[in-house]
Amino acid sequence: MATKKILLLVLDGLGDREYEGKTPLESAVHPNFDELSATGVNGLMYTLAPGVVPGSDTAHLAMFGYDPYKSYSGRGAYEALGAGIELRKGDVAFRCNFATIDSSGRVVDRRAGRIEDTHPLEPLVQSIKLPGGAKLVFKSTAKHRAVLVLRGAGLSRMVSDVDSHGLGNIQKCMPLEKKGAKTANLVNMFVKKSHDVLKDAPLNAERRKRGLPEANVILLRGAGTLPAVESFQKRYGMKSACIAGGAMYKGVARALGMDIIDVKGATAGVDTNLEGKVKAAAAALDNNYDFVFLHIKGCDVMGHDGNFDGKTKFIDNVDRYIDHLMVRNDTVICVTGDHSTPCELKDHAADPVPLLIANCGRTDGVRMFGEKPCASGGLGTIRGTDLMPLLMGAANRARMFGT
Amino acid sequence: MATKKILLLVLDGLGDREYEGKTPLESAVHPNFDELSATGVNGLMYTLAPGVVPGSDTAHLAMFGYDPYKSYSGRGAYEALGAGIELRKGDVAFRCNFATIDSSGRVVDRRAGRIEDTHPLEPLVQSIKLPGGAKLVFKSTAKHRAVLVLRGAGLSRMVSDVDSHGLGNIQKCMPLEKKGAKTANLVNMFVKKSHDVLKDAPLNAERRKRGLPEANVILLRGAGTLPAVESFQKRYGMKSACIAGGAMYKGVARALGMDIIDVKGATAGVDTNLEGKVKAAAAALDNNYDFVFLHIKGCDVMGHDGNFDGKTKFIDNVDRYIDHLMVRNDTVICVTGDHSTPCELKDHAADPVPLLIANCGRTDGVRMFGEKPCASGGLGTIRGTDLMPLLMGAANRARMFGT
Repeated sequence: MATKKILLLVLDGLGDREYEGKTPLESAVHPNFDELSATGVNGLMYTLAPGVVPGSDTAHLAMFGYDPYKSYSGRGAYEALGAGIELRKGDVAFRCNFATIDSSGRVVDRRAGRIEDTHPLEPLVQSIKLPGGAKLVFKSTAKHRAVLVLRGAGLSRMVSDVDSHGLGNIQKCMPLEKKGAKTANLVNMFVKKSHDVLKDAPLNAERRKRGLPEANVILLRGAGTLPAVESFQKRYGMKSACIAGGAMYKGVARALGMDIIDVKGATAGVDTNLEGKVKAAAAALDNNYDFVFLHIKGCDVMGHDGNFDGKTKFIDNVDRYIDHLMVRNDTVICVTGDHSTPCELKDHAADPVPLLIANCGRTDGVRMFGEKPCASGGLGTIRGTDLMPLLMGAANRARMFGT
Repeated sequence: MATKKILLLVLDGLGDREYEGKTPLESAVHPNFDELSATGVNGLMYTLAPGVVPGSDTAHLAMFGYDPYKSYSGRGAYEALGAGIELRKGDVAFRCNFATIDSSGRVVDRRAGRIEDTHPLEPLVQSIKLPGGAKLVFKSTAKHRAVLVLRGAGLSRMVSDVDSHGLGNIQKCMPLEKKGAKTANLVNMFVKKSHDVLKDAPLNAERRKRGLPEANVILLRGAGTLPAVESFQKRYGMKSACIAGGAMYKGVARALGMDIIDVKGATAGVDTNLEGKVKAAAAALDNNYDFVFLHIKGCDVMGHDGNFDGKTKFIDNVDRYIDHLMVRNDTVICVTGDHSTPCELKDHAADPVPLLIANCGRTDGVRMFGEKPCASGGLGTIRGTDLMPLLMGAANRARMFGT
């Protein structure tokens, strides 16, 4: 029996609500997606469950077939892995922001004026010493963002966030369980020391002169540990690759043992190199990969901005490049979102996302890719953890039970 | 409230994929099935689960409402029961093939040239003595096929297959768990002794002369024990009967306590006596049976052969005889498959199967029985273990919870 390859194209935040009777996906012009819908089967997907708003990390775990209620161990781990840090068992990783505090220690800008580049500050933070044999790995990533990994004995991810997502006093890191006490203590020490090393940095002196918010403290959130999961290769017997702009998505893929294919100009924004990413996916399918996860972030960005027209246009754009993938008879193509990000909410919603699976030898009469047409599709309404089994079945890779 | 009777018509391997936009079921002409779809409710069914390729045995257990992940205990048991052997607790049953080995002991034909009748050889195999108080029951069934039951203390089904489905050296039976050691030992002894008693049989001397492969060894596979399940009668309160050609299907039915109604000319092939089987089902419904399971194998045979036109024609044929059943106002009629056997794969697939339930006082606008029309039916997409509850509801036999 000939197996097929699988392409999973995730348009982050794809799902939306209607404005004058149409969602952005339904307003967009996308002959390629429509052709995939018409030549495949369609449905809706609750990535986690009805009434649960998916995070991007948990949603992706579910779509890869890993029940996040069992395997999720905090966002920080995916950020660290996505930033290229080698995360070890026992490490606790955090998402970090360079932020601005005033002379009384209050947060006045939690993104330090969306500072463009913090790499000059990175060695200062890396020089911080922690007591009790604890070590740290610190990496500046894009703009005000960074990743911290604490390494040492007796650490735990069961600690509260320092970054409250608001202004005012810095939140003290608190243990959420007794075993988090040591980690919370180290975190509070780290935050204090980050201010000590950053406040007099030349870059901040210069920003002060230019009237820009100083990057004079590091705020942490999303403590996470390496998820203890079976690898994607072991579970599905497929050599897999991830093509994504955002660090977190690469991190989820790395946590499952996927190879990461970097593409020049992949930005996790609407300005991403769509053509480069799609061509890289096609090349990966040509070159020995059985499963390619192609992540495109722009819809989510536009949803968070409440930009209905921008989301619509971005979908138009993606559709234009998809023809590089549609010629493949050897590949099951799945297009979906990880969650909906309705423009009217400017945030993730619990609404289901549209889903199509094409080149699987079956159709269902749906002619257009959109929330409404998919609602009457042959896949019905599924959950995220059903997706991989369905794709394995479509690719003639499912196993028999019984005889 | 008047209860209804239930007819479950299983067209084995019914589901398929599209060739030029149509599946065999969609290409076939079946006014009777279409009338049932139009006067009933329709849907798709994953007999086991999305992404699991159903075996015929596990699929039938699921459709009868018995979760095979809990109750499946190996195919051999169903083959033995289907062959009319009384299987006891502790017995281990095997599917057997009469096969051909050459002078060096290598399998050169695993079906002994699809030998027509092995009954003359049966007493020779039955005469084999095993040590340690173990007894055997052996029965030749159709063509090269047979069934062996080992009876005695300390037996286990946790042993590997002797029949590797290929040619070359005979696989040694190995224990899959420690408790399988005794059984594996007996199996290996049986295989050796089967050659001893068969090699000089008159039938083989004659086949040798005629240049035909000798039936000079027995290969075993699919060790199974009596499933420990509640009877169908006890679970559903319905007197039930099975009409099938294939031994395995009768075996599953017997394991659940159904009566077996034998029909002359029921062959489990495309040449089966369709009229006889359908009329026997109608008669059973007339005569006191509340539930009749009518199994028709031909679609699966054609699917395994990759014969799209043959499958289509066979469906045409079945439809022609169904009118004997359609006149019954007292009976809920369900038509479905146990799994799909797409012609392009020549094997079972994980794809869902079409399903209709007619004469239940509800319709859903579907006018034709086919994979695509059923995809938009009112039953949605169900799993195999949902089927009996739905049929019980349709037949006014479901129980109330609460008041």
